[in-house]
Amino acid sequence: MTEIPDSHPRKSSLLSRQKMVEAAKRGLLADSAMIAHGRGEAYDYLLGERTTESASLAIREAAARLLDADSPVISMNGNSTVLAGEEAIKIAAIVGCPVEVNIYYRTDERMSGLVRELESLKESLLATSPPENKEAISGVDILGMVSDGRIRGLEGPRSLCSAQGIEKADVVLVPLEDGDRCEALIALGKEVIAIDLNPLSRTSRTATVTIVDEVSRALRGIVDELSGEPEPGPWDNEQVLRDALESMANASIRI
Amino acid sequence: MTEIPDSHPRKSSLLSRQKMVEAAKRGLLADSAMIAHGRGEAYDYLLGERTTESASLAIREAAARLLDADSPVISMNGNSTVLAGEEAIKIAAIVGCPVEVNIYYRTDERMSGLVRELESLKESLLATSPPENKEAISGVDILGMVSDGRIRGLEGPRSLCSAQGIEKADVVLVPLEDGDRCEALIALGKEVIAIDLNPLSRTSRTATVTIVDEVSRALRGIVDELSGEPEPGPWDNEQVLRDALESMANASIRI
Repeated sequence: MTEIPDSHPRKSSLLSRQKMVEAAKRGLLADSAMIAHGRGEAYDYLLGERTTESASLAIREAAARLLDADSPVISMNGNSTVLAGEEAIKIAAIVGCPVEVNIYYRTDERMSGLVRELESLKESLLATSPPENKEAISGVDILGMVSDGRIRGLEGPRSLCSAQGIEKADVVLVPLEDGDRCEALIALGKEVIAIDLNPLSRTSRTATVTIVDEVSRALRGIVDELSGEPEPGPWDNEQVLRDALESMANASIRI
Repeated sequence: MTEIPDSHPRKSSLLSRQKMVEAAKRGLLADSAMIAHGRGEAYDYLLGERTTESASLAIREAAARLLDADSPVISMNGNSTVLAGEEAIKIAAIVGCPVEVNIYYRTDERMSGLVRELESLKESLLATSPPENKEAISGVDILGMVSDGRIRGLEGPRSLCSAQGIEKADVVLVPLEDGDRCEALIALGKEVIAIDLNPLSRTSRTATVTIVDEVSRALRGIVDELSGEPEPGPWDNEQVLRDALESMANASIRI
């Protein structure tokens, strides 16, 4: 990796970009993953590359709904695994839920590569965690290789999922966009917590709770909130989307 | 290529994405090119994937300044060649100026690949053009392989350019962002016409005339304006940037 000085104002964005470039070389990402990442960079730039107040509320609501769920699951794709895989495992350990690899352009190679990547992040986390956390971390199942479940309403390989993960879940945390899948999960009566930097996307507009924030900041935020015993409240998701657009519009004052 | 139905509202954006994915496979693009393209997609999405009124004014001003220049040049990188190489050659033919390949991450392989790509676009254009246009088209020089010029103010390989192109130019049309280079060119007293979808970028804020529009729409727009004998006027570039941000902010009414 090229060295980026600590003083660089956009250091974390540039580090994320390097992670993506390297993961692409390792074959973990779909062809269009880098383009999706670039879209995220643009929206995040307009947000000022920070978690807005409104996104913080969505992060707390997400933490509360995950704790309150009967069968929560965290659905991970290539980009979210590369950018925030460790945070996903931390959340799963605290909430006591599985992590499921579920990708749009499904190939055996990428599925097994991403499952291996998450297993290896879990091992490193286990090695560096205090003794009292080890049991919870080692209890996190990484699902995805066995496709014994279906997402009704989707066609072909995209309908595949794990019976113990997304199929039986009542609350699905889905970092990053896939409008069709989000709609299908909502149609099945599940709650969807989406993390999507584009407040106008179909995912953002369809999800139960939308966190308009960069995925690693959002998942770190959920980890922090989980320790505070948050309670789910009434939730106005449209307000969150309007707030995000307003923050982006206010980027103009930086000129 | 996957078939995208004509009725798809985002057809041209999806076609551009496919072009980029294919060009990446052919080695024409830098690692981060797809990320840059994604950023462009996001800003364009907020613009409504259309040329705004304010961008139209910038397009006309660009056409006027190219016609008015003593030594104009069109500087092309990987993304702009892939997305709008043919339009660049059309402009060069009408204005009577060279096209120069000039890239941020310079390798011999990519330089020669992009020059070949532009030469081949020139050949196809020549083959399909009416007889009266053939001389102008075949007169377009594709520069870049001979680095006998320097951009003072830049270091290392990025300072290389063609003596007959960017070095001697008084007006440089630069599709797509490179903040350092834009600043260096302006510091040398040149006029820079930038095409950049991010109105907050250093390039956008530094350029003489900024066209906040998708590169192929912008270059097609310049081709159209060139036939109308436009005259350069007084130019408030900050206003264009404010207008672009306002258009993006108005995206919120689409929710």
